[in-house]
Amino acid sequence: MSTVRGNAIVGQSGGPTSAINATLSGVIRGASLSDSIDKLYGMVNGVEGLLNKSIIDLSYLFGDDDNLNALELTPASALGSCRKKLPKIEDDEEFYKNVFAIFKEYNIRYFFYIGGNDSMDTVDKLSKYSKKSDYEIRIIGVPKTIDNDLPMIDHAPGFGSAAKFIATTIKEIAADCAVYTTKAVTIVEMMGRDAGWLTCAAALPKYYDGLGADLIYLPEKPFDDDKFISDVKNELKKHPNVVVAVSEGIRYENGNYVGASNQSGAVDVFGHKYLAGTAKNLEALVKKEIGCKVRSVELNLPQRCSAHLVSATDIDESISIGRHAVKIALDGKSGEMASIIRVSGIEYKTELTSVPVCEVANNVKLVPNEYINEKGNNVTRECVEYIIPLIQGEKNIIYKNGMPTHIRLK
Amino acid sequence: MSTVRGNAIVGQSGGPTSAINATLSGVIRGASLSDSIDKLYGMVNGVEGLLNKSIIDLSYLFGDDDNLNALELTPASALGSCRKKLPKIEDDEEFYKNVFAIFKEYNIRYFFYIGGNDSMDTVDKLSKYSKKSDYEIRIIGVPKTIDNDLPMIDHAPGFGSAAKFIATTIKEIAADCAVYTTKAVTIVEMMGRDAGWLTCAAALPKYYDGLGADLIYLPEKPFDDDKFISDVKNELKKHPNVVVAVSEGIRYENGNYVGASNQSGAVDVFGHKYLAGTAKNLEALVKKEIGCKVRSVELNLPQRCSAHLVSATDIDESISIGRHAVKIALDGKSGEMASIIRVSGIEYKTELTSVPVCEVANNVKLVPNEYINEKGNNVTRECVEYIIPLIQGEKNIIYKNGMPTHIRLK
Repeated sequence: MSTVRGNAIVGQSGGPTSAINATLSGVIRGASLSDSIDKLYGMVNGVEGLLNKSIIDLSYLFGDDDNLNALELTPASALGSCRKKLPKIEDDEEFYKNVFAIFKEYNIRYFFYIGGNDSMDTVDKLSKYSKKSDYEIRIIGVPKTIDNDLPMIDHAPGFGSAAKFIATTIKEIAADCAVYTTKAVTIVEMMGRDAGWLTCAAALPKYYDGLGADLIYLPEKPFDDDKFISDVKNELKKHPNVVVAVSEGIRYENGNYVGASNQSGAVDVFGHKYLAGTAKNLEALVKKEIGCKVRSVELNLPQRCSAHLVSATDIDESISIGRHAVKIALDGKSGEMASIIRVSGIEYKTELTSVPVCEVANNVKLVPNEYINEKGNNVTRECVEYIIPLIQGEKNIIYKNGMPTHIRLK
Repeated sequence: MSTVRGNAIVGQSGGPTSAINATLSGVIRGASLSDSIDKLYGMVNGVEGLLNKSIIDLSYLFGDDDNLNALELTPASALGSCRKKLPKIEDDEEFYKNVFAIFKEYNIRYFFYIGGNDSMDTVDKLSKYSKKSDYEIRIIGVPKTIDNDLPMIDHAPGFGSAAKFIATTIKEIAADCAVYTTKAVTIVEMMGRDAGWLTCAAALPKYYDGLGADLIYLPEKPFDDDKFISDVKNELKKHPNVVVAVSEGIRYENGNYVGASNQSGAVDVFGHKYLAGTAKNLEALVKKEIGCKVRSVELNLPQRCSAHLVSATDIDESISIGRHAVKIALDGKSGEMASIIRVSGIEYKTELTSVPVCEVANNVKLVPNEYINEKGNNVTRECVEYIIPLIQGEKNIIYKNGMPTHIRLK
């Protein structure tokens, strides 16, 4: 397909990560090198910004290495985010006509959307509509999510940095817990509604250094209170300080969330339940059933925004996939998501590719069975070996006044 | 006073910090250079280890720069800790006779105890008993606490690193919160039962970079639900994403803890109440009274053990004060705590000194009035200028397998 010349637009959507701005920087770097892209616009707050023409010109950053380097280490979506779900095309064709009128107005021929499963739904719908439209535009998804639950990709950009934060923090918490001789249980809760990938990262410190999470529970396996208490009692026989890692989304056999009783039952626009009380509920359970000292730690927002502790591998890949997204658009692709393949072999090596976004949108990649041990209370060596390359390397963070420097685009 | 020759012993007590091992390293470095100290022993788990002769010889570390450098960046008490309160001398003289028999057995002439307010009570009692005893031993307290609530010292070693973690994390959380346009309140809870020093550190990012905690509530001022809700509403008028920083120990005028209703009422051996639900309770209050999106983040253990993000100033001072403790003991002092004076002037400069431990033990230094704004919902410039030098500088953390390396002594 021939290359079309015009402007490009990029947006960020869904939950922020520590690497989502690295991908934005990659798109900017890629666009700046192309003769087919004149201006690169940014949607402020994702498609919401597109709809109300809250659009800024990012072309001033072309070739500005200082600001792009700083952007790559700035946490959270620098262009802002949204959680807007687009209507079905058949339900509201007028909506799409309006969007495409804006594309025409700005002569936008390339559309890049950085996001997770839900954002890929937006990319899918826009690209499907574009096939019905006579306006030539290429619609590309660029993956990010700390949850690592995107299908059709070896691992999601953003996951490695969150995993590095979790592995490091679990290692530090385990060191903290080890100072007392009193029997104590510390329950650490990670994000992950359906997929336990982030919680798997809690396995790394003990695997490599002997001290870390002793028990790991993922949403992929039904949770059982009695089995959990029995697991904890067994660990307490071995050493006085037991560290437990749990996903926020662990559920009982009947499908009820372990964290549910502390919840309002509220759901977001995509119908996902808000969860927050999993570790708190297990803390109460241990207090009641075992009676020893117990506390809960919810890693909460820092696991997705601690940009001072990013994985260099993750940041570099996030930049590369942003550039790759521009490349595949220039190559004529549309309705695709830029993706990563892990090339098998002893050394970690990846290749970039692209996949149909319709196969990614709204789908979830769970932790596979072979990554979970038989007892369902830890992960396997295969799982550790899958994650460990993703957390390698550190970036040189620039501090000012004792705090990391961030830059702002909006 | 003449110098006595013999062995020394060092212990760590109370809550761990990211800098308490730097102080231990300072004691080791100081002892290794003295002709009067033959062996340096370590108590495993503080005075509990002393009592049951769980004592290890640390002299193998003399001159071992590699291990000492690694120790200085290892979080949590490498010798273990305890929360043992010694009996009053008049209540149980036998107890002290036993302790001093152990000192004699190991020919211990120098006793160094690294800890906070409660640990200084141990130092005070042992030094008082030593004056009644004919056994010559010098008993020295070495300060540490993330809480910064020790009197008779400009700031406590350990505080700077915790403050740097808090300032950085609040900055990152504020960046994360700023991505959405929906009105939202994020309430972040810091440690601090009586003193709000750690929560003061949440003021730094907004002061220096415009984005951070908008409202700050300390235990030093009575908390009022109505005033809080009114403060939050005012902030929401200015921008959609309000970040609130609160100390775990904030109390109502009547003395009840804001976090109390979520509590078991349990107290530790020193009679301190366990608190954990302050931000959670305020989250419920905002949901009820304002009805916007609201969430709570408890910084929890990571604020005291995130050694991957220490303040270089704090670590260097923590090492120096450990060495200084040895120096003052060799100078003949006993019943003293090594201390830091800030020399006034434009540039941050400190001097080391020592103070009578009896004036430190069991006392608390609160955030002074002039550090809190008139409305009681933020801190003043003086407060910011007090804290900012303490978080300066970063250490070169050594990573292995993508995680910081730690060393173990016991």
